[in-house]
Amino acid sequence: VTDIRRTPNHQGAPPVVGDLASFPSHAALARSLTDAGGHGTLSTLTPDGHPYGSLVAFVAADDGTPYLLASELAEHSRNAHREARAGLFVAAADVPDDADRLARPRVTLLGGLAPFDASPDDRDRYLERHPQAQRYVDFPDFSWWRLHVARVRYVGGFGVMSWVDGHAFRAATADPVVNHADGILAHMNDDHADACLLYARHLAGAGDATAATAVGVDRHGFTLWAETPAGPQVARVAFGEPVDSARAVRAAAVDLVSRARQRAAADGA
Amino acid sequence: VTDIRRTPNHQGAPPVVGDLASFPSHAALARSLTDAGGHGTLSTLTPDGHPYGSLVAFVAADDGTPYLLASELAEHSRNAHREARAGLFVAAADVPDDADRLARPRVTLLGGLAPFDASPDDRDRYLERHPQAQRYVDFPDFSWWRLHVARVRYVGGFGVMSWVDGHAFRAATADPVVNHADGILAHMNDDHADACLLYARHLAGAGDATAATAVGVDRHGFTLWAETPAGPQVARVAFGEPVDSARAVRAAAVDLVSRARQRAAADGA
Repeated sequence: VTDIRRTPNHQGAPPVVGDLASFPSHAALARSLTDAGGHGTLSTLTPDGHPYGSLVAFVAADDGTPYLLASELAEHSRNAHREARAGLFVAAADVPDDADRLARPRVTLLGGLAPFDASPDDRDRYLERHPQAQRYVDFPDFSWWRLHVARVRYVGGFGVMSWVDGHAFRAATADPVVNHADGILAHMNDDHADACLLYARHLAGAGDATAATAVGVDRHGFTLWAETPAGPQVARVAFGEPVDSARAVRAAAVDLVSRARQRAAADGA
Repeated sequence: VTDIRRTPNHQGAPPVVGDLASFPSHAALARSLTDAGGHGTLSTLTPDGHPYGSLVAFVAADDGTPYLLASELAEHSRNAHREARAGLFVAAADVPDDADRLARPRVTLLGGLAPFDASPDDRDRYLERHPQAQRYVDFPDFSWWRLHVARVRYVGGFGVMSWVDGHAFRAATADPVVNHADGILAHMNDDHADACLLYARHLAGAGDATAATAVGVDRHGFTLWAETPAGPQVARVAFGEPVDSARAVRAAAVDLVSRARQRAAADGA
């Protein structure tokens, strides 16, 4: 599957048709990756000025601010005590083994890394996501650190990227669907290819499409890769209203089929 | 499985017994991760001095020097043109979903990142590892970059870590077994738990072990987690001679069983 999940904006990209306003914002997509928590690469600065990447297990606070538990003995802790400027790189988890990782979403959060006093809720949230940390959460040499996000670089895949301001990042909300896209897309393409073609032809402006593949899904709608006599097009169709969970996509997809059929009948197709 | 693959050196770690000299060097283990190629997090420096992590697909030259193909438009290329100091973070690939990533090996390579003229062999090696790069290898805005490694931080898991000098890194050779350890360890523990206990008792100095689990394997031998009446021990047993492939571990393991039985008989056990 060609993974064009967002508005492609690189040279040579196919035209994008349909409901362009319904593409999720990069701020929301960045929040989707961050709020899922998990493992990331923390970049800190060594005493001799090299950017130093290391593995961390993090979660995000309600406003998307990532925080983590680190040993005072770890290089990244020593580095951050000297120099707060840091970055956290997070890629989508659960990438299929055969996936082209460079075509998959990821995000880099830049800002200042500083120790903080984790509340009991912060601690519970962390241990729920990283239960193995129970073993060392009470060690005296472990401390809580959080990254105050100043700027965000979101990369959705080839040629799909932008900078997001820290305030916009904190104000956005994670998309409840996009982290579950793989399963939904596989289901649509394996079992409902006819629906995808209906969407492309009658709802997304690719009226002469001969085939369509779902390549993206989020709370606002589907992104389709449509084959047309004039070449491929990226075709976007919006749900009637945003869905609030991955589970709700099914009903929204069925509703889109009804709308597409009504439109087809009205168009005399 | 407790993942103690290397000499534990943190406080409170169990005693290590057996053939300690046979543990692989951290230089060789760093080369094993690097020479496998794959994806890593490149850390570069933004104009405002933040360390910036981004996804790259890399391979290693014969001396372990990592190199990669990058668009001139990418942030990391712009950053590296301004400031060569960079880092490449590489974690073991194909980690089981339920694994504790913080207990798994990873490496950070620090040095200077600079463009270079890739030879046809360099190019072939890269495209063999990353066939998807065929799509853009000839794009005019893509260039080859390599990281001249000045220092290496190897982290084998909790409390198992050291700095390795760039010269030692380049002089070391990758271990042909360690990247295949998961499958070998699962086989040993599932089907040959009796052999592991023989090793621990009669070859690795844990004579009163009541159970033993293989937790590490490399070209030089097995690392075992042995339960004894006095508490757990890490027990190391060396092969008769280093093996040259993962496949050769089987014969070496059988040979160790013979040696352990002979020793047991000689000891009157």
